[in-house]
Amino acid sequence: MVQVVELGHGSGGRLTGALTKRILSRFASGDGFQMEDCAFIDGRTAITIDGFTVSPNDFPGGDIGKLAVCGSTNDLAVRGVRPRFLTMSVVLEEGLPFSDLDRWMESAASVCRQLDVALVAGDTKVVPRGAVDAIFISTCAVGDRVSRHILGAANLRVGDAIMISSAPGLHGAALAAARFGLKTDLLSDCAPLWPSLSPIVELPGLRCMRDCTRGGLGTALCEWAEASGLGIELDEEAVPWDERAGAVCDILGFDPLYLASEGCAVIAVEPTQARECLAGLRSAGLSPSEIGRATSEHPSMVGMRTRIGGLRFVDMPSGEILPRIC
Amino acid sequence: MVQVVELGHGSGGRLTGALTKRILSRFASGDGFQMEDCAFIDGRTAITIDGFTVSPNDFPGGDIGKLAVCGSTNDLAVRGVRPRFLTMSVVLEEGLPFSDLDRWMESAASVCRQLDVALVAGDTKVVPRGAVDAIFISTCAVGDRVSRHILGAANLRVGDAIMISSAPGLHGAALAAARFGLKTDLLSDCAPLWPSLSPIVELPGLRCMRDCTRGGLGTALCEWAEASGLGIELDEEAVPWDERAGAVCDILGFDPLYLASEGCAVIAVEPTQARECLAGLRSAGLSPSEIGRATSEHPSMVGMRTRIGGLRFVDMPSGEILPRIC
Repeated sequence: MVQVVELGHGSGGRLTGALTKRILSRFASGDGFQMEDCAFIDGRTAITIDGFTVSPNDFPGGDIGKLAVCGSTNDLAVRGVRPRFLTMSVVLEEGLPFSDLDRWMESAASVCRQLDVALVAGDTKVVPRGAVDAIFISTCAVGDRVSRHILGAANLRVGDAIMISSAPGLHGAALAAARFGLKTDLLSDCAPLWPSLSPIVELPGLRCMRDCTRGGLGTALCEWAEASGLGIELDEEAVPWDERAGAVCDILGFDPLYLASEGCAVIAVEPTQARECLAGLRSAGLSPSEIGRATSEHPSMVGMRTRIGGLRFVDMPSGEILPRIC
Repeated sequence: MVQVVELGHGSGGRLTGALTKRILSRFASGDGFQMEDCAFIDGRTAITIDGFTVSPNDFPGGDIGKLAVCGSTNDLAVRGVRPRFLTMSVVLEEGLPFSDLDRWMESAASVCRQLDVALVAGDTKVVPRGAVDAIFISTCAVGDRVSRHILGAANLRVGDAIMISSAPGLHGAALAAARFGLKTDLLSDCAPLWPSLSPIVELPGLRCMRDCTRGGLGTALCEWAEASGLGIELDEEAVPWDERAGAVCDILGFDPLYLASEGCAVIAVEPTQARECLAGLRSAGLSPSEIGRATSEHPSMVGMRTRIGGLRFVDMPSGEILPRIC
């Protein structure tokens, strides 16, 4: 049997990890690869790249242009890096109406203006009808570190407070509702996390942050537990679940823990600075919640304390939930 | 009539320029956009991004993995920049055999090892069957300037010598032959231009260089003439045309001036340093030729002195010659 790439390899979960490791194993630099949202090429400059294939290209609360800039700059923001430069590669399908392209590029440009990020390099390719579905965009963002130290899962310590910047899963829920024709007023949370995170990035006790995109809150926490070797305990009742997203999950059979966000960060901070961290996030207009802690129990695993008091272990998704979410 | 993206917008010629300007017009930074192969984000650090959609993914002399690393690092090399870091975004079609992916990634990694370039960040997406043709790759390369000053078309002066590092158009000719089933032993010239160009990048009289990719030698020279306001005179007889590439052009009706190369640079240098420049390129194993000069005649236009002594004006291609060449 020929081994092939499956949709599950795009889930953001365990199979995506396996695909990434498979590719990295070829590269000499693969051993030192930072499995974080972006990479530092010196102590100060960070870089990240993301591909965007979202379907539909226009979704409630955003479009592929907005998503492409938010997605890559958010990967910088969660490592305490101020986004400064963007490069963009666009693959277009023959026959794409310019009115669509113009609208998506205006969305992308609008986020760049908001962030004071300069588009410095780009590339366009046009492929014959059928060789790509309308448009794919890859964006690579570069910025400067503002945080006092380099943020990352390796900084996690027992007792650290875990918080979330807003309700998780709204992007995935809005996309799913749109794709399956469910009536809802849900909008994607697609938005830049910079400068919203700037009030907290200089906190000395800030450990790490992560953009809860593909794979959702559940996957982000599992990656932290595995990378740090610590356990993470999540209080189900403390998570600010969105009721409409919950309803979409109930109807479609999804677990909200794995639904993607595109403007929501999970944050770990030294416990004595948790209040200051929450206050800083509120000052930026976010509605954060403390949702859990790092623990010496169940090392490398995430346990969710359920509403009825049980402990449910959370694993990464191993198959695909919803392809082309970002 | 709805205005749509056409294949010609991917040619690398005039329509590609129009598409690029259309996108850039949305961005605040568009006015200061450097229309060169890469952009400096400070006096020293340069960045470039390219998308790769080549078909077939395996071609005589290379594959999409090798091309993706050569293509983006060559864009640095021609501006006197040593490539150091790479980020890569890969979009895969559901059902792609891992044996293909592994081979292409090994090709990419092999060029990285050769260049001592570290892959520092990456992204993978998987889309359902039919949403992409097998694999598209975007690579963003970052490096440090080695040249004494910043190279670019604005440096061109009347009298500058124009040279080419090898026979032009071999990539395009090999791709065209493969795609149309012509029997030939032609190989793509796909190869890294670093460190081959390193012996000349510190020449004080080096003006600018360009990677003759999509749109070929003809388009590269037209862009220089337009950017500098000078005329460029090309000696047809001095160009080291490859006979097999010429035969492919004769059969398929292509103009070799516009055939893409993927390891061939056009170089402009102060005339008193032309010999030193040629010697430097030869020391790196290249077979360069002096092919023309910058002139005050026919400003902003390229004229080719033909074998029979006439002057043929060279314009950028306005339609698509061969889609998915890179």
